[in-house]
Amino acid sequence: MATTVPKIKFREPQIEMAHGAGGLASRRLVEGLFAPLLFSNGHGPLGDAAHIQLNGTRLAITTDSFVVKPLRFPGGSIGELAINGTVNDLAVSGARAEAIVVTFVLEAGLPTEILEAEVRAMANAAQVAGVSIAGGDTKVVEHGKADQMYVTTTGIGRLLSNVSVSPEHVKPGDKILLSGPIGDHGITILLARGELDLEATIESDTRSVLPLIESLARAVGDSIHWMRDPTRGGVATSLNELARDCNKGIVLFEEKIPVRDAVRGACELLGLDPLHIANEGQFLAVLAAESVDVALEVLRNTVGGEQARIIGEVREQPAGTVAVTTCYGGARMIDMLVGDPLPRIC
Amino acid sequence: MATTVPKIKFREPQIEMAHGAGGLASRRLVEGLFAPLLFSNGHGPLGDAAHIQLNGTRLAITTDSFVVKPLRFPGGSIGELAINGTVNDLAVSGARAEAIVVTFVLEAGLPTEILEAEVRAMANAAQVAGVSIAGGDTKVVEHGKADQMYVTTTGIGRLLSNVSVSPEHVKPGDKILLSGPIGDHGITILLARGELDLEATIESDTRSVLPLIESLARAVGDSIHWMRDPTRGGVATSLNELARDCNKGIVLFEEKIPVRDAVRGACELLGLDPLHIANEGQFLAVLAAESVDVALEVLRNTVGGEQARIIGEVREQPAGTVAVTTCYGGARMIDMLVGDPLPRIC
Repeated sequence: MATTVPKIKFREPQIEMAHGAGGLASRRLVEGLFAPLLFSNGHGPLGDAAHIQLNGTRLAITTDSFVVKPLRFPGGSIGELAINGTVNDLAVSGARAEAIVVTFVLEAGLPTEILEAEVRAMANAAQVAGVSIAGGDTKVVEHGKADQMYVTTTGIGRLLSNVSVSPEHVKPGDKILLSGPIGDHGITILLARGELDLEATIESDTRSVLPLIESLARAVGDSIHWMRDPTRGGVATSLNELARDCNKGIVLFEEKIPVRDAVRGACELLGLDPLHIANEGQFLAVLAAESVDVALEVLRNTVGGEQARIIGEVREQPAGTVAVTTCYGGARMIDMLVGDPLPRIC
Repeated sequence: MATTVPKIKFREPQIEMAHGAGGLASRRLVEGLFAPLLFSNGHGPLGDAAHIQLNGTRLAITTDSFVVKPLRFPGGSIGELAINGTVNDLAVSGARAEAIVVTFVLEAGLPTEILEAEVRAMANAAQVAGVSIAGGDTKVVEHGKADQMYVTTTGIGRLLSNVSVSPEHVKPGDKILLSGPIGDHGITILLARGELDLEATIESDTRSVLPLIESLARAVGDSIHWMRDPTRGGVATSLNELARDCNKGIVLFEEKIPVRDAVRGACELLGLDPLHIANEGQFLAVLAAESVDVALEVLRNTVGGEQARIIGEVREQPAGTVAVTTCYGGARMIDMLVGDPLPRIC
């Protein structure tokens, strides 16, 4: 029997929290170990969804495990996040979630009421997103071998007819659209843990972005060149991945990036950049410049899209980088998230 | 926004290991909590795969989390099990696995060589089973919040053209085929933990059963009324579920059930019944009586199917039960697995 023995480039001796944070360390693990061994098509876990062919039908598939801590937080909970995260991963790949399957790894001793609350949260999120839950699986591990519960969701979706997104479609002059304020989810989780001497009235932005993306697609589908939901690693990590994948430069206009005061304040205290903070209900889209006005008008007339705006643009140079310019004319380069300042954010 | 508030029947105050063991307690959890809240189509996690319609194409989807302990055992490992388990769940639903997506929940501090070994095991198992790995996701939790690694695989498959399995197709007079010896996987795992003062030369039966099922389907596809891979809970649990779902009686002929000496010996010492022990490379099929001779001939001429045999039959009465008869004329009823004598078997 033939055995494949590809070489791997990942040389770190053990797995650290940062390898699950969605930033640079995650990318090293995926590109250095998973991709060469597992993903013959080059599609790795850092992408949003894979598009595959089955019986002549093209469909999208995506999978994510959720280990967020705490399970419940202002604005959402792990069950709701697990459904919306998968709906959103499909949506930004240009697909509408049709069916989701779910698995639970439960810790023995978990109160049933906690499980029931999350199962109800999933059912409600699925109903709101218009997706059916087709099946699942449950495993139980000894008390102390999991942190209450871990949830994995896998979604399959139908491709939206006039949307085709890829880093290869991104061109200099394209505009970068952001659906709303950034950092709400990550900062909410951080505060919900109560480990910091900080309080703020803030809620996770967790929601399905599918209605926004469907509105956008109906209006200017052919002009959408790329999309991504900037979860772990935030907007900066998503756009750095895009810059590298399309080999173009990305410039962001700092004063255009919507950040709530509570998020900005917490970030300043903690030495974090809002551009690195996870979001669970926002998306980035790269659009052809000529369709920007229509896109913004459509989104602003869709519930939840009122704060959409253009935050930057694509340039030929410097290729592979993301720069943030300020209204005073200064500029700084911003890289992917390094390390893991915000563990178990989703 | 409408909120569904279905009633649930599951009244146990907390989750116990038995709820993940695949037996009676699992069924109570699924039927009492997951099914009423999540599965609008009535398909629950105890089944093998759901069949859904997408863009006019019917396809099968299945998902499973793997928490087997230890990660490596004679004959296999968690990575290999995670691929074959999903391939097999699709196969017994009458589908050929086409793509698998995978997630990892890793414990911080996990040596990279352990992860690499399992990723290679997955790649090899996928190659052998002829399925591509289309994507994935990785999360990392703090040291002590997982047991090395948990793996979740989701597979989508193309339906085999002439196979349609359902408890509703099962008729009195049908014969029950078993692909080979039972209990190897469960007893191997139990011994591999080294907690018992027992030794035996035995290996897990973990493998893809797809080639066997494809051979069977080509020869007598229309005669296959039902299939199942008897993993957690073993043959007894799978057949009890069938007996209840089809409302027929099932009779097994004890002397026809293949059990290796090492498995029988370990079961006697531990007070377990081999019919309750998990398998990872066997399948049960209910066949129309007239196709049995051809089915056995075909399987015995397919690599890995040499030990296939008929172990019982379906009768009108007593409905909903499984009885085991001995060559001396005695009979005993055998129920689903109760409790969890074998935790974290897959």
